[in-house]
Amino acid sequence: MKTNVLTSVAALALLAISMNACTENKSADGTATADTTNAAIENIMTRTSVRQYQPERSVSRDTIDTLLRAAMSAPTAVNKQPWAFVVLDTREQLDSLAEVLPYAKMLTHAPLAIVTCGDMSKAIEGEGRDFWIQDVSAATENLLLAAHAMGLGAVWTGVYPTTDRTQAVQERLGLPATVIPLAVVPIGYPATDNEPKDKYKPENIHFGRW
Amino acid sequence: MKTNVLTSVAALALLAISMNACTENKSADGTATADTTNAAIENIMTRTSVRQYQPERSVSRDTIDTLLRAAMSAPTAVNKQPWAFVVLDTREQLDSLAEVLPYAKMLTHAPLAIVTCGDMSKAIEGEGRDFWIQDVSAATENLLLAAHAMGLGAVWTGVYPTTDRTQAVQERLGLPATVIPLAVVPIGYPATDNEPKDKYKPENIHFGRW
Repeated sequence: MKTNVLTSVAALALLAISMNACTENKSADGTATADTTNAAIENIMTRTSVRQYQPERSVSRDTIDTLLRAAMSAPTAVNKQPWAFVVLDTREQLDSLAEVLPYAKMLTHAPLAIVTCGDMSKAIEGEGRDFWIQDVSAATENLLLAAHAMGLGAVWTGVYPTTDRTQAVQERLGLPATVIPLAVVPIGYPATDNEPKDKYKPENIHFGRW
Repeated sequence: MKTNVLTSVAALALLAISMNACTENKSADGTATADTTNAAIENIMTRTSVRQYQPERSVSRDTIDTLLRAAMSAPTAVNKQPWAFVVLDTREQLDSLAEVLPYAKMLTHAPLAIVTCGDMSKAIEGEGRDFWIQDVSAATENLLLAAHAMGLGAVWTGVYPTTDRTQAVQERLGLPATVIPLAVVPIGYPATDNEPKDKYKPENIHFGRW
């Protein structure tokens, strides 16, 4: 189902009238309604870290593909797309990575993990090289949001720039020297209710200048 | 309107039956339907950089607040929340920043820009300090996705780690020495249709190990 976001005054009018009603998901001209806008915003606001997963419920390869498509939809400086992804979805693979990452013990009961990496062979050269961190972070956030939208739970466990974690993941996954693991993301169907933290702080906002 | 994502088998059953139908936005138990899942995923997949904006259409303070709430909903290492945001929404403020950022000329016709920053006074100490880059990148991606969901267009223009851009923004916005601008995000209602790039590449995906 293809939806586009609000792009016209007509769609904005729909926003006003459809807030609490059952409306079709698309208006006549193909633009989205208030429901689709709200769903996307709510998905961002309600995502939270999930560290416990239903033990017997695996994640399908189609769902994994959607997660990776979302990740690769991230913005990327100078369109370099300097990212790569390692998917772990067998008990053996997940337990093997957990052995070298004691802080990521949830791997031992997650049905899936995706390791998001930067590929330096594709990065910008010179002073802009470290824009790869921002690109792969945006891809990782897209992956977490897509997981949440599909009823999955996930948690971003940081790897780079911590030296020992970076080396441990590189060795265990056989990464080339040019590939840097940024994050390990365990994923599964949540075993518990997970309330999002309220991190909104008006004092973080400045108007005009500091 | 509060929605939660698919969390039950009942909701998954709804997924199958509601793909093309007009359905209520919530099922009886409060979980989201296929429409809300699809809307959130589609919003991620269809976001793209928007550099031209409708000249006379400003962005309301309520909408700006939603953008900032989305940004502050990002994951953050050790819950440090090491971020800050500078909102520019007058012609004078926007043109003033454009003067020192020749590569971000779209500021001169955008009605709004948000500068996403890292606040080193809140960052992790020691080797984990640079996790602030990942936190602020995730916040910036949330902001771009929320903009897209509300019918706005935006573009991530990189600042840090480019030294001259970082210093120029720090000086022009009066940032304390502890505050590092990561990105300048011009925002407005799109003046043109903007097709998302297809960046999906199966060769970026590895199963089990590299």
